[in-house]
Amino acid sequence: MNTKIAAFLRDSRPATPCLVMDLDIVADNFCALRAALPDTRIFYAVKANPAPAILKLLVAAGSSFDCASIPEIDMVLAAGATPDRISFGNTIKKESDVAAAFERGVRLYAFDSEAELDKVARAAPGSRVFCRILTSGEGAEWPLSRKFGCEPEMAKELLLAARFKGVEPYGVSFHVGSQQRDLEQYDRALAEVADIFHDLAGKGLELKMVNLGGGFATKYMVDIPTAEQYGQAIRDSLLKHFGNRMPETIIEPGRGMVGNAGVIQSEVVLISKKSANDNRSWVYLDIGKFGGLAETMDEAIKYPLVTEHDAEGAESEPVIIAGPTCDSADILYDKADYRLPTALRIGDKVEIRAAGAYTTTYASNGFNGFAPLTEYYI
Amino acid sequence: MNTKIAAFLRDSRPATPCLVMDLDIVADNFCALRAALPDTRIFYAVKANPAPAILKLLVAAGSSFDCASIPEIDMVLAAGATPDRISFGNTIKKESDVAAAFERGVRLYAFDSEAELDKVARAAPGSRVFCRILTSGEGAEWPLSRKFGCEPEMAKELLLAARFKGVEPYGVSFHVGSQQRDLEQYDRALAEVADIFHDLAGKGLELKMVNLGGGFATKYMVDIPTAEQYGQAIRDSLLKHFGNRMPETIIEPGRGMVGNAGVIQSEVVLISKKSANDNRSWVYLDIGKFGGLAETMDEAIKYPLVTEHDAEGAESEPVIIAGPTCDSADILYDKADYRLPTALRIGDKVEIRAAGAYTTTYASNGFNGFAPLTEYYI
Repeated sequence: MNTKIAAFLRDSRPATPCLVMDLDIVADNFCALRAALPDTRIFYAVKANPAPAILKLLVAAGSSFDCASIPEIDMVLAAGATPDRISFGNTIKKESDVAAAFERGVRLYAFDSEAELDKVARAAPGSRVFCRILTSGEGAEWPLSRKFGCEPEMAKELLLAARFKGVEPYGVSFHVGSQQRDLEQYDRALAEVADIFHDLAGKGLELKMVNLGGGFATKYMVDIPTAEQYGQAIRDSLLKHFGNRMPETIIEPGRGMVGNAGVIQSEVVLISKKSANDNRSWVYLDIGKFGGLAETMDEAIKYPLVTEHDAEGAESEPVIIAGPTCDSADILYDKADYRLPTALRIGDKVEIRAAGAYTTTYASNGFNGFAPLTEYYI
Repeated sequence: MNTKIAAFLRDSRPATPCLVMDLDIVADNFCALRAALPDTRIFYAVKANPAPAILKLLVAAGSSFDCASIPEIDMVLAAGATPDRISFGNTIKKESDVAAAFERGVRLYAFDSEAELDKVARAAPGSRVFCRILTSGEGAEWPLSRKFGCEPEMAKELLLAARFKGVEPYGVSFHVGSQQRDLEQYDRALAEVADIFHDLAGKGLELKMVNLGGGFATKYMVDIPTAEQYGQAIRDSLLKHFGNRMPETIIEPGRGMVGNAGVIQSEVVLISKKSANDNRSWVYLDIGKFGGLAETMDEAIKYPLVTEHDAEGAESEPVIIAGPTCDSADILYDKADYRLPTALRIGDKVEIRAAGAYTTTYASNGFNGFAPLTEYYI
């Protein structure tokens, strides 16, 4: 594993469970994405991990920020970003929050409905707005519902209407689904976006920006495309669909920026069977679904687990892995066919790899009395 | 609705989302359970809502407490309970936490495996221990997995073995599943427990206590048994299976103690459709799965929703209800066929009833920047 994190765990022996993030990896991820898409502005999706250390690093690196709420906007401003580097990317905003963002200087807003467009027009007059369209999310590991976005036909109508509401119809956004390994999905979405651009140009509205959203994967159990492969696929699709009328582009990586930079150190609390002839052991860790591993919901995200007994050829056995709370739903992996070393014992450490995204803030506010996840940024 | 909560919401106009709990209802629930099971000790399942106001009320009322962790034990002690009123009911405990509980005077511990029994024997010598057995959870609305408990045969072996480990094999516990409306489930479990008692008595071990767990329901959308009906069913089953050799009994109500005492006040952030001919509207509230309504997972718990437009005969329409975060999984009800008034507008209040249990501590630690749920106890 990452030697910096390994050294920290060895030397500091922090109480478990805890998340340790290597900020150098975040910086590397930022550089890799910038190199892969040199003409694209990067808006870090703050919700993936809003730690001040990460925000400060990305401010210094030149990143912009995709924010979901006023507290996230304030965290980004506190880290030193100017408001022109902030997109209020949530399509579900209280009008009072739009006004608060406008007051802070934010001038770029997402919407996907007439009511939301009207709120932005009233509370953030003159701002740039982009309309999110629905995509299928096919191939994404984290479920993409129809919660965000509208059908392209509605997007066209709303963008045309925006001109008369005192805001600037600036572009279109989409999201291919989190942890998207199928690069073809970007092409499909960009074809739809290009159609909107073309159609609206014919009606006298020249859109300027395509927001390509996120989807950039973190390596869990299976291989993923590299940043360069994501970039190549996106650049090819942009060229194919927009030719020499290339729009401004932005991306909103969250998981792809921080996921592989973090390791959660946990401890085995109990290993047991339910009867003498039970064919699988239960391994209970001191972190579960309510302590930061919410993305194990429906076993969607399969984190790599590493122990000190993993030497090649070491005997392993099938296990059910669960968290420490008194909630019967707090099971991490049952159907996913996890195996752990037969030599694993109570008190042993289990490293949960690639845990830098969607863990700290997903942790519950003290469920069962367990404190939120402790965090170290090194 | 509850006039005390209504008056508070009307007069104080708290910012949404917030939970308002009527402590009188908690007191009423405690009295109703005590009246229904006068010979049974009540151990409140602290995890359902560990607010100091609730703990203090229940300490004064004479309740005991089922705790899942050292922080919960400390909250109960801080509320004025003596340690003899505490059960460390989690079957998954670090040995250091068993030692910490023992140090605080706790002398009653749950286990369901040999390894856990050994931890308790080492770290809490001389204590009373009870073994949790597996039950099917059939009929429970919140999923009951095989996470807790062991098969009865293993329970017998472990309880017999406990005698030689320096702890007192005190009894057996089970859980029929949270929000259990089928009273027959208690009878099935008690038949198994009585068999264990009988079998072990034949081997010279007289167990003394049956822990009936929880399962006591809160009224959400459909009717539920009264406390008296739960009590009658349990008393009948105890008599049937134990006759004149009645054991001590304890219950661990959580949801049944606080669920109906709380209302979450929320606000409509957005109402929208995805296309002009969409047949259902999306209604986005300012609270969702990560803000306290985690029990909407798989639409398991169906909270009653109340608005100011609910007059009899008022027009309503089918809706999808979602939370305010940028997470596509943050949808409360899609398949559950919820309807809301056609007159509902952005900015209107929506009351989420029977929300006193498993909400405040399930709330995430600031996911998307949204603060944990504000709480008022009146």
